[in-house]
Amino acid sequence: MEGDRMSSIEAALEYARGHRDAFLDQYKELLSIPSVSAMSEHAGDVQRCAEWMAAQLRSLKMAKVEIIPTAGHPIVYGEWLNAPGKPTVLVYGHYDVQPVDPLNEWDSPPFEPAVREDYIYARGASDMKGQIFAQLKALEALVQQDAPPFNIKYLLEGEEEIGSEHLEEFIDGNVERLACDVVLNCDAGIYSQDQPGIIYSLRGLAYFEVEVRGPSKDLHSGRFGGTVRNPVHVLSELIAGMHDGEGRVTLPGFYDKVREIEEEEREALGNLPYSDEEWMRMSCSKALDGEAGYTTIERVGARPALDVNGIWGGYTGEGAKTVLPAVATAKLSTRLVADQDWREIGGMLRAYVEQHVPEGIDWKVRDLSGGPGAITDRHSTYMAAAVGALKEVFGKDTLFSREGGSIPVVGMMQEKLGVDSILLGFGLPDDGIHGPNERQYLPNFFRGIETYIHFMSTIGG
Amino acid sequence: MEGDRMSSIEAALEYARGHRDAFLDQYKELLSIPSVSAMSEHAGDVQRCAEWMAAQLRSLKMAKVEIIPTAGHPIVYGEWLNAPGKPTVLVYGHYDVQPVDPLNEWDSPPFEPAVREDYIYARGASDMKGQIFAQLKALEALVQQDAPPFNIKYLLEGEEEIGSEHLEEFIDGNVERLACDVVLNCDAGIYSQDQPGIIYSLRGLAYFEVEVRGPSKDLHSGRFGGTVRNPVHVLSELIAGMHDGEGRVTLPGFYDKVREIEEEEREALGNLPYSDEEWMRMSCSKALDGEAGYTTIERVGARPALDVNGIWGGYTGEGAKTVLPAVATAKLSTRLVADQDWREIGGMLRAYVEQHVPEGIDWKVRDLSGGPGAITDRHSTYMAAAVGALKEVFGKDTLFSREGGSIPVVGMMQEKLGVDSILLGFGLPDDGIHGPNERQYLPNFFRGIETYIHFMSTIGG
Repeated sequence: MEGDRMSSIEAALEYARGHRDAFLDQYKELLSIPSVSAMSEHAGDVQRCAEWMAAQLRSLKMAKVEIIPTAGHPIVYGEWLNAPGKPTVLVYGHYDVQPVDPLNEWDSPPFEPAVREDYIYARGASDMKGQIFAQLKALEALVQQDAPPFNIKYLLEGEEEIGSEHLEEFIDGNVERLACDVVLNCDAGIYSQDQPGIIYSLRGLAYFEVEVRGPSKDLHSGRFGGTVRNPVHVLSELIAGMHDGEGRVTLPGFYDKVREIEEEEREALGNLPYSDEEWMRMSCSKALDGEAGYTTIERVGARPALDVNGIWGGYTGEGAKTVLPAVATAKLSTRLVADQDWREIGGMLRAYVEQHVPEGIDWKVRDLSGGPGAITDRHSTYMAAAVGALKEVFGKDTLFSREGGSIPVVGMMQEKLGVDSILLGFGLPDDGIHGPNERQYLPNFFRGIETYIHFMSTIGG
Repeated sequence: MEGDRMSSIEAALEYARGHRDAFLDQYKELLSIPSVSAMSEHAGDVQRCAEWMAAQLRSLKMAKVEIIPTAGHPIVYGEWLNAPGKPTVLVYGHYDVQPVDPLNEWDSPPFEPAVREDYIYARGASDMKGQIFAQLKALEALVQQDAPPFNIKYLLEGEEEIGSEHLEEFIDGNVERLACDVVLNCDAGIYSQDQPGIIYSLRGLAYFEVEVRGPSKDLHSGRFGGTVRNPVHVLSELIAGMHDGEGRVTLPGFYDKVREIEEEEREALGNLPYSDEEWMRMSCSKALDGEAGYTTIERVGARPALDVNGIWGGYTGEGAKTVLPAVATAKLSTRLVADQDWREIGGMLRAYVEQHVPEGIDWKVRDLSGGPGAITDRHSTYMAAAVGALKEVFGKDTLFSREGGSIPVVGMMQEKLGVDSILLGFGLPDDGIHGPNERQYLPNFFRGIETYIHFMSTIGG
């Protein structure tokens, strides 16, 4: 048995190595579909991308492949249950991508994938078309051999970048269908180019839009300036007041449920091969900042944060328009840690705004998206399989770390299906996801395929 | 002589009354030209509007009419010097208009003039195509009679709404040509529908763009949130800090040269038929606000102010994008009173920003436009002519007031030509200039023509 497994792994690796050019061509095809879920004008492209993914699953001879409509973008589901008694892996991924603005900062068009040196540049290259596609190619390599000794299900959504709005409803309605032993979540990355890493903690998200309205229409700033409250000033004061002098968020009750980091974990995090200089480089920043009393690695992984994601109001065109704006709006989001409940943040934000908005100013807080954070057991057999696979391919032990970003589905799977997610993907911290010139390091795209081959085979036992 | 003058005024009034429909048609034609000076895509329309104005002047049999190019939009100049020994009036006006956004808040398209009840709605209807056009029609009515006993020059610029960038240079180079006894500046309004008013004080302007840059590119707000300064937060803090708890502007040295209002003038201003309720209605606001220790009328006319005119940064599109923006920008302007020097404000703003921006954040302050304020002598013969003309047409004494807006050319004329400007125009405070649904009250458009007929004739003596 062991020998068979080894030889079928070898054959799969052989197949993967022999098909690199073909895989790269297909990867580029996938990246050229502008599946921007946030913009309604791209709804057709998102649908087209769903069909492309479904075609991939069908080519893997899945018994059942469906494109399931939601009130938003569709979910692609596939399953292949040919190994009774063996573990079932639910592969999670998303095929949608972030918007591309500021477009003028891209060195090559975001949906015309371009290879420069060891990187491929395109929106979605790293987040996460590259990862889910590597996993599909690993399965392709495995199914060329003996029927793999595991069951597999795919759940590919098209709304991850807009907060997975309809995913929860879908999971709620399909708990039986999605039943599994472990989730393989490919929406992930490693520590650095040659250093495997697995993230065991994710922050939750609560995302809002705050609108502040003063006069019921735009005014002449000369004729009325100095006599009425300017809503941009009010919004600026609100934002300025959301952090205190220690970098702490001032929304009332914000820290009440935050779990303090234990001393032992602080030590482990402190031992990670990390430097503030490296973080400055990755964040393209000249200085670091944040909550007093915590290191950068703690701030990003184990402490909550609040950021304005966008702001606008008044005249933003060319030249000088002397207007006193009627409305100012900001998009803002909080990143949450255990045991904060993302559903409670909106109430805190509303209480804060209510408390600080001056008389005569109207305001609205709109909930845009949100999701729970998650912490995964570092000692399960599935985690061991992932660590082993990474060791095979990268030749190094895995570093465990906490991640500042949110993958709401991880918390959802934990809550609704009762299973942990193994976060195994091959993005890098400086891939520039969500910004211009997003890229994927190609050597790790191919290592990723091989790691998935090892991981899946190990799980099959 | 006196009888002749009276009969020629009567004849001119007769002519004006008999041509109201024709005047209205031409007015609509003028309003349909989208001469938005701030937007380069409208440069051709601005040029077309200059040609339209020049054609009007030629139709008045001016000896000399020129469209004079500048580095920006052209100046239209005309003169008619047939009354040696008589006073020379320099008529100032501008034929450019403000941008029209937010376009979706207009009830009818901004460049398709629409009459509803007693108003005509269009961009520029009040500011100031309606005013300068009424003055032209007054001259047309006068030139149908005996050769008028005054000399007249026209200076019509196309850049008033973008800070009259090239006007100063033009005046500097044409001091002889522009020599006059008084300026009739039609870029003005009256107190209320039936109450004539003249503004004798204007605020100066200094307009800037402030850009704050943190990371050199947009970041993922989850991956980096809580570890680097967000430039939107920094910009918000800067804006929030620009006023203290008393509503005073905190730029260092901002009040050093401000002339305090004398007790006697405070009393006069206090006697104006004004109420805070009325101001709230006009400003479409539910509450008033401003510098402590001053009334609304003082705040707007005799005290300086600072307003953000526009702000933008990060993601401003549909949905939720989890980005930590690289850049945030605000347009902001100060309104200045005697004896503040608009050229000194940029230095104060830069000192303020320098002092408050945290380490690792880059910033820029760009000067967009500016101009001096002005105070006009209330006791000149020209002012008496204006007050008399208003009394003839409206049957009421004129109220003198200070205005919060800026008409930089008034200060410039005072500085460079050594003459006062009589601000005689027929806009109303609630015409919605610079905002959507700008309008002109039509009965006062026609009264305006008659007032200009009286005024010009009186000056001729």
